[in-house]
Amino acid sequence: MGRQGILIVVSGFSGAGKGTVMKGLMDRYGSYALSVSATTRPPRPGEVEGKAYFFKTREEFEQMIADGALIEYAQYVDNYYGTPRAYVEQQLSEGRDVILEIEIQGARKVREQFPEAVLLFVTAKDLPTLRSRLTGRGTEPPEVIAQRLCRAAQESEGIEEYDYLVINDDLDACVEEIHGIIESEHRKISRNKDFIHQIREELEVFSKGE
Amino acid sequence: MGRQGILIVVSGFSGAGKGTVMKGLMDRYGSYALSVSATTRPPRPGEVEGKAYFFKTREEFEQMIADGALIEYAQYVDNYYGTPRAYVEQQLSEGRDVILEIEIQGARKVREQFPEAVLLFVTAKDLPTLRSRLTGRGTEPPEVIAQRLCRAAQESEGIEEYDYLVINDDLDACVEEIHGIIESEHRKISRNKDFIHQIREELEVFSKGE
Repeated sequence: MGRQGILIVVSGFSGAGKGTVMKGLMDRYGSYALSVSATTRPPRPGEVEGKAYFFKTREEFEQMIADGALIEYAQYVDNYYGTPRAYVEQQLSEGRDVILEIEIQGARKVREQFPEAVLLFVTAKDLPTLRSRLTGRGTEPPEVIAQRLCRAAQESEGIEEYDYLVINDDLDACVEEIHGIIESEHRKISRNKDFIHQIREELEVFSKGE
Repeated sequence: MGRQGILIVVSGFSGAGKGTVMKGLMDRYGSYALSVSATTRPPRPGEVEGKAYFFKTREEFEQMIADGALIEYAQYVDNYYGTPRAYVEQQLSEGRDVILEIEIQGARKVREQFPEAVLLFVTAKDLPTLRSRLTGRGTEPPEVIAQRLCRAAQESEGIEEYDYLVINDDLDACVEEIHGIIESEHRKISRNKDFIHQIREELEVFSKGE
């Protein structure tokens, strides 16, 4: 049976180590397709077009919005960030699981358009760990820490809209956990309708033949 | 955070090897509690009370029904079979995952009473395999084969009421798949409400304190 690709959204607290987890997942499992965002932010030194981001002018980005070429987009500090639709849809249609690392607002947009998407929220293993990651070594200015805390509080508001809570304590364990969740999702009855339909038809034909 | 036990129902086609898979799961992971059915069927040689079944008289069994002491029960060929409630509820409350190997009618009853139960349907890897398991070596009388096919066709009717379709091709892989599904279920947002509630509260207190 041909396996359908699953769209996986990964969000989580800043400081929960999402980036490292994503890298670990991509390094260990070549089967996943990582969606690359488009942005109007200028490239930083070392950032490669199509790797870190697809770099666009404001005009190009706004044309993509107008064309419906983005699944979701948002503006942060005067720059646009968004998920190009074509890559995601092509990979899914080829049966690959596609991973998007985006924030809650984007996750909501994805869910609207891809109701079968799987939404993961990554968190630190417990409150002291989360707190220490948010406050850092105490060397940052209080306003930076205050901003991070405020953001984490906002992020925590939307957790119930996600499907799974993933703990990032040990990196390897976290990568395995995410892979395990995706494998389990592939076993969902709703994702195996063709196989079930086929078995049922065959059993019917077969019963009549005996 | 204290982890809540999950009630797991395993059903599947006769001949899909459910029994072997259950044994493999229990052997490999000591953490699961396997529910033992009560029955009015007389013990067969070698069957140990409380291991194979809890053996009951018809009067005792009917008293259990009257007392609501069974989560589900059914009658096959003049004998009652049922799932004692006390063991299941005790194990769950202690945080253990409990496994029930029952048929679709029983699975429905479990779902009514335990909406958070996880229902797995075990199947052979493909139709030729299922067919060869159902027909055996061709040495059985045609009426036995016809009966098996009829039963499999009936069993296939209810598959959509399950949550996951598990393929039993390689035994080890199948055991790992089931274990993986249960682990993933533990990561569901709906099963981690206390943790989420705690994080949110702490973040709030913490933000205000800064």
